[in-house]
Amino acid sequence: MDFERLQKQIAFVVEIDKLKGITRQTLLTDGSRHEDSAEHSWHLAVMALLLSEYADEKDIDLFGVLKMVLIHDLVEIDAGDTYCYDEKANGDKAEREEKAAERIFGLLPEDQSKEFRLLWEEFEARKTPAARYAAALDRLQPLLNNNATKGRMWQEHRVKSRQVFERNRPMEEGSSVLWEYAAKMIREAIEKGWLSA
Amino acid sequence: MDFERLQKQIAFVVEIDKLKGITRQTLLTDGSRHEDSAEHSWHLAVMALLLSEYADEKDIDLFGVLKMVLIHDLVEIDAGDTYCYDEKANGDKAEREEKAAERIFGLLPEDQSKEFRLLWEEFEARKTPAARYAAALDRLQPLLNNNATKGRMWQEHRVKSRQVFERNRPMEEGSSVLWEYAAKMIREAIEKGWLSA
Repeated sequence: MDFERLQKQIAFVVEIDKLKGITRQTLLTDGSRHEDSAEHSWHLAVMALLLSEYADEKDIDLFGVLKMVLIHDLVEIDAGDTYCYDEKANGDKAEREEKAAERIFGLLPEDQSKEFRLLWEEFEARKTPAARYAAALDRLQPLLNNNATKGRMWQEHRVKSRQVFERNRPMEEGSSVLWEYAAKMIREAIEKGWLSA
Repeated sequence: MDFERLQKQIAFVVEIDKLKGITRQTLLTDGSRHEDSAEHSWHLAVMALLLSEYADEKDIDLFGVLKMVLIHDLVEIDAGDTYCYDEKANGDKAEREEKAAERIFGLLPEDQSKEFRLLWEEFEARKTPAARYAAALDRLQPLLNNNATKGRMWQEHRVKSRQVFERNRPMEEGSSVLWEYAAKMIREAIEKGWLSA
């Protein structure tokens, strides 16, 4: 057997192990440490399975959602995780991630390279119902973890409720129910003093 | 809106964050630390997407494979990760995991609890083509990471090549190509002195 194609795929599989070393601002629910982007991606995928009944669009392409959330952060292997409330770092985020996508997806055989690239672009563009649902999950998960740790990261970074509402409102485009739930959680976090108004 | 159903689902989503704290024997490819079961599950899911052309059974239910690999380790939240070469711990593994499945999947609304339970049982039984492909990936991933770290864990645990062949041969039931590739990798590891014959 000629392993040329398989060897490219395996090289990619080995390369993406690095996502486990990309630390996010979000803490684990027990507050013991920050989570990494591989763990975050797994969490989103399970959430996608469980919560699809709340996607606004019915008969959503759930398989496509899974693919998107599984690979949406791979560009961070080169570009790093950009904290959503860091305005400066967000300035050149697109450019850094573009270069990263080129290199990382470029490791794959051409057909799969194209497929992954398109999935990543679909996720980023948030134009399809599947991408909007995926984006809603991508916001809900850190919110849940932040809530479980009584907003420790919000306090450390002096994040204001206005920023949290602004960051999370796009959830509404994918799932009005999840956004209703999340908005209630944010309001309660303010009441409890976990997030400054 | 009545959030009763959603609240059960969210409680489950928050609970499974604990999988990020379940440490496996496998090291990251850079050898910096052990990986955890959430990272491992994510890695398998991406592999499932990329390598399905090598599943022996054609037209495999890839969506089902993804679901299985995403949830296959959730029982470890209560039962812990059992090292595959630890014969003693493997003695009561089934019983411990059974109890864990009862509690953890029991957090979900009944329909989803049943679905996840069935997926886990399907994975464990390795009787469907999807489960056999999923099981092949579950063996290939640690092998790749072990290889990337020059077999450090094999050496630390004094694992012999006979055990590695025995542990990994079931890969063949899901994918003869991946097993061919893996067996070659194991033989080369012996030649390089990373694994004792």
